[in-house]
Order: sequence, then structure tokens, then C-alpha cells
Amino acid sequence: MSVPPTYSDILAAARRLRGVSRLTPLLAGTALDDLTGGRILLKLEPLQVTGSFKVRGAYNALDSIEPARRSAGVVAFSSGNHAQGVAWAARRLGMPAAIVMPADAPRMKLDNTRALGAEVITYDRLTGSREAIAKELAESRGARLVPSFDDRQVIAGQGTAGLEIMNQAGELGLTPDQVLVCCSGGGLVSGCALAIREVAPHCQLYTVEPEGHDDARRSLASGRRERNPPGGSSLCDALLAPSPGELTFPIMHSLLAGGLAVSDHEVLTAMAWAWRELKLVVEPGGAVALAAVLAGRIDCRDRVTAVIISGGNVDPATFSAALALA
Amino acid sequence: MSVPPTYSDILAAARRLRGVSRLTPLLAGTALDDLTGGRILLKLEPLQVTGSFKVRGAYNALDSIEPARRSAGVVAFSSGNHAQGVAWAARRLGMPAAIVMPADAPRMKLDNTRALGAEVITYDRLTGSREAIAKELAESRGARLVPSFDDRQVIAGQGTAGLEIMNQAGELGLTPDQVLVCCSGGGLVSGCALAIREVAPHCQLYTVEPEGHDDARRSLASGRRERNPPGGSSLCDALLAPSPGELTFPIMHSLLAGGLAVSDHEVLTAMAWAWRELKLVVEPGGAVALAAVLAGRIDCRDRVTAVIISGGNVDPATFSAALALA
Repeated sequence: MSVPPTYSDILAAARRLRGVSRLTPLLAGTALDDLTGGRILLKLEPLQVTGSFKVRGAYNALDSIEPARRSAGVVAFSSGNHAQGVAWAARRLGMPAAIVMPADAPRMKLDNTRALGAEVITYDRLTGSREAIAKELAESRGARLVPSFDDRQVIAGQGTAGLEIMNQAGELGLTPDQVLVCCSGGGLVSGCALAIREVAPHCQLYTVEPEGHDDARRSLASGRRERNPPGGSSLCDALLAPSPGELTFPIMHSLLAGGLAVSDHEVLTAMAWAWRELKLVVEPGGAVALAAVLAGRIDCRDRVTAVIISGGNVDPATFSAALALA
Repeated sequence: MSVPPTYSDILAAARRLRGVSRLTPLLAGTALDDLTGGRILLKLEPLQVTGSFKVRGAYNALDSIEPARRSAGVVAFSSGNHAQGVAWAARRLGMPAAIVMPADAPRMKLDNTRALGAEVITYDRLTGSREAIAKELAESRGARLVPSFDDRQVIAGQGTAGLEIMNQAGELGLTPDQVLVCCSGGGLVSGCALAIREVAPHCQLYTVEPEGHDDARRSLASGRRERNPPGGSSLCDALLAPSPGELTFPIMHSLLAGGLAVSDHEVLTAMAWAWRELKLVVEPGGAVALAAVLAGRIDCRDRVTAVIISGGNVDPATFSAALALA
């Protein structure tokens, strides 16, 4: 178990990521402003290297490993976006990477991870334990296990998205009143919360999750780590962690305003909207925060609302289902 | 007939467009670098307001109209992207707009133009004369006709894309050796050529067109304005002008290196690539320059090549055809 990051860790991550990750656009002035009566700022992480924000935390974690320990490589488990982030970072830093992925992960995520040079080990998501497989693999190789959220450097890396949002909003003369962030284990939202409360202590952060997988929403309400019932599935393959992390939840609990949930249909509608209005490809899990705004799950009137669109790695068949609603 | 723009007109357009159009990303470090052995910089105009570069020229032209003449409004004819650009600029400047569009234009372009508050007059592309309809309309209303390419302010506005490319490449420490630009009437490519030769006189610009509609390529080769045979169609609805413009061609002839052409299949393949690798929605006409790189129509090895991806307004059915190749 790692220690929680501080604001300085996020600043250090931002320095590490300079010239490595992309400064993705913060889009203002879309049709959402008229729709909501507020100002909506969209952070476009599908345009990030590897097609999602995950490369921020992955690269920051790998680059934090002492050079002498790098040759043993890294091991990770991931439904796909962290997998690609770790594979990309490992290739860039010249380290071997082995990634444990569910056999039913989107084909694109499996293919991309392999194409980035990582060794991919698949397991059955309903019967296997990815944690156990990855742990055994890491121990047998002396490799470093890179968790997808419960890790100081991973959270710090994801927090750079929050830093960028505040800087880019500032360039527009704006300070977000509220920020909506998709949530699986809570790495992105807790990193962003640590970054944002430093410059805008009154800004309210909300998690957004798929209905039926709203463990963060329920945990924030009850004050303790609630779990989703096992075996469930969702269109949002990236947001299936059973509960908030050990390291992320205390940060979430102390800094977040609450949680929202959206339906699969609202997610597909948001993906279609992004296709039509933003010309952006968004994966289901990447669209939940946008879906919450479009579905009116939060009042944006007369407020500045930042929304993270977190990734765009989606298979053609799933994307076609969204396109049918466009 | 208008006079050709100068570099100062482009700088003036950039000032007018500040805070109006978006500084779209110039994306570096994509998979194209490994694929070509060169450095490829992608200018992402689907992320522009209205989903294409056309708003640059349209807004610049409308904002150049003396305030006393604005209430009579503007008239334009367009297959769709200029239509949306003019409609958007007119709404922003509080001017009425009437747009003459082919009845078989993509549904999205017709819908978006109407949604922006413009009056849309449709005509039969194979039998009607959009020029005649628009001219009569403008005369009867005392409205200003805003050509889609043969206009000093329109060309100057489109040239701001070229200015941005050079500035953004400069921030990466790069100067493009060559630039690929889609071409219909030549407004974008001639504006960009005027902007680029000022800072990089040795940079080579190429038009890219659909096969069978390669009037610019043939005109650049012969030195005079060649026409496409009438009645042809193409997947690239935005690139069907019959010949380079009167105003644009002299600029093209004196400043461009040559022209390239790509097939419909290469265009769909490029759209699928952009969907998968860039998470970007690109319309057929917007994908031709990218298609030329992917299809190996130009040598990019050891060179810096800037490619304009010009728009993303495409109907779901056409997009699905590309998705089937992804």
C-alpha cells in the first residue's frame, strides 16, 4: 500500500509529463451552453496519447521507478485504458511490460496494448482474480506492479488533468464552480480533487458512474467503501471497479461533493452527441460525465462546469450502436 | 470580382478571429511518424466551430461588411460547410443569412445550417445554377453575396489556418517542408500558401482532391484553369467545385508545388484510421490530405509534413461505411 499523493506530487508529475503527454484541449462555447444555461468546459482526453487520460498516471508511475529497477519491468492489470497507458509508457522508457486483461475487454484495447509491445495475459473476468494473477507474475519476475488507481504516483499523474483544466479555464478568465469526473476506482477524480482544491477550494467535484455500478456515489453518501454486487456488466467497460480504492476513497470522501449515475441509454446518447457536435470519438466509460450534463442530472445554470471526457477506445460495433442514435 | 488578399489581410483576419474561431490543435507524434519515416503534423479542423475551417473565411468576410450594410444580410451558396460557417457568423454578428444548398447535400449540413438560424433554399445540383439563384436573391434583397472561395476576405480568413500551422509547428521547433491541403475552389490552399510562403518560402504546398475531380491537379500541371466534366459525383461532397477559382488559381499557380488525387476507398480508409487512431470524426472531403499520406501518394521520409484535416460534418450512413473498414 502506497501513501497518498500531495499537491507537490501532482506538480512533479506535470513536470515529468511535459513533452510526453499531450495538453488536450479544454473546449468552450459548445451547444451545451445554450442547452444548460451555463458555461460548460469539456476536457478532451480521447485526444490524449493512447486515447485516454490513463497514460498520465502510468507514465508518472513508471518514470518514478529507480533506473536500477527498471530492467525487471512492470506488471499491471486493467480493463484496457490503463493497459495501453502502461504499455505506451514502458515502451517509451524501454521497460518490459506484462498486462493482465479480461478476455472480454474491447478488442481495440487488447489489440492496442499488444501493438504497443506489451505481453498480454487474459483471464476470465467472472471467475479469475486479476489481482492474484498480476501479483504472482510480478513476484516471479521481480517486476513492479503498477496499480490502476491505488498508487501515489498514478493518482498524482491523473491529477495533472485537473491542473490543466484549472490553467486552461484561467486562460479563458473562468474558474469552474463544479467539475464532473467519471469514476471507476477513483484515481482520476481523487487526483483532480487534490489539484483543484489547491486553486479553487470552493469548486465542487462529482463522480459520475454507470447505473448499477455506482459504488462511489453510494460510498460518498454512506461515508464508507461500498461494493457493487459481483458479476454485473455494463456498457462502460472502463468503469467496473467493484469499489473505490483504499487510497483514493479517503481523498474522495474528504474532497468530493457527491456522486451521480447515468443509464446505458444516456451514455449512448452522449456518445452520439459527441460524434455529431464535437466530432469526437468517445468510449462509453469516457462519456458518463457528458451524459450527466445532457441528461440534466446536475444543475449547470449560471455556473461554470468542467466535464472530463476521459477516453475514446471503443470497438466499431459498440460505436455503431451510438451512431444509430445520432 | 474581388482583389486577391495579401499577407496583411491574413494577419488582419487572424485579429478578427481571435476569441471567435478556435485555435485547433496541431497534433504531432501520431502513428503516422513510424508509418512514413517522417514527422507528420495534423491540423484538426473538425474541432473548429461549426465542424470545419470554413467559419474562418465566412466570419472574416461578414465582419468586413460595413455596419450600415449589415441589416440587409448575406446570401451564400454552398454544399454545406461554407453554409454553416456563414450561418454561424451571421448569427453571431446579428445579420440575416440565406443559403442556397444542393438538395442532396448531407442531411447534417442542411440541418445544422437551418439550426443556426439561416434560411436554406435548396436546388437540384445537376440541373439548377446555384450561382444564378444566389445572385438573384442577393440583388432582390440588397444583401451581400459571400462567395465560398473567390473572395479576398474569405481567402484571407482561410489563410489563418496556415498561420496557425506555422506558429504551432514553430512551438515544436519545427518548420514544415511540405503541406497537404484539400482543394475544391482553392480558398483554403491559396490562403494557406500566402500565409506560409511569408515565413517558409521553401515549403512545398500540394492540393489533394478526389479522383475524377482533380481539376486543381490538372490545372497546376497545365497552367490554366481546367474543368471537371459536369454531372460527376464523389463521396467527397465538399470537394465538387468544377474548377479552381478566378481569384484563387493565380495564387495557386504561382505558389503551389503540385496536386495529388485519392480514391473513395482511400478516403474511407483514412476516415477509419482517424476514428481509430485520432478519435476524430472526419468527413470524406476532410480526409483527402490524410488519405494521401496513408496511401503513400507523397514521400514523407525525413521530412516534416503538415496535413490539414479540414472538417467533420458527415451523415451517420456515410460514417458507418468508414467504420466498416476500422
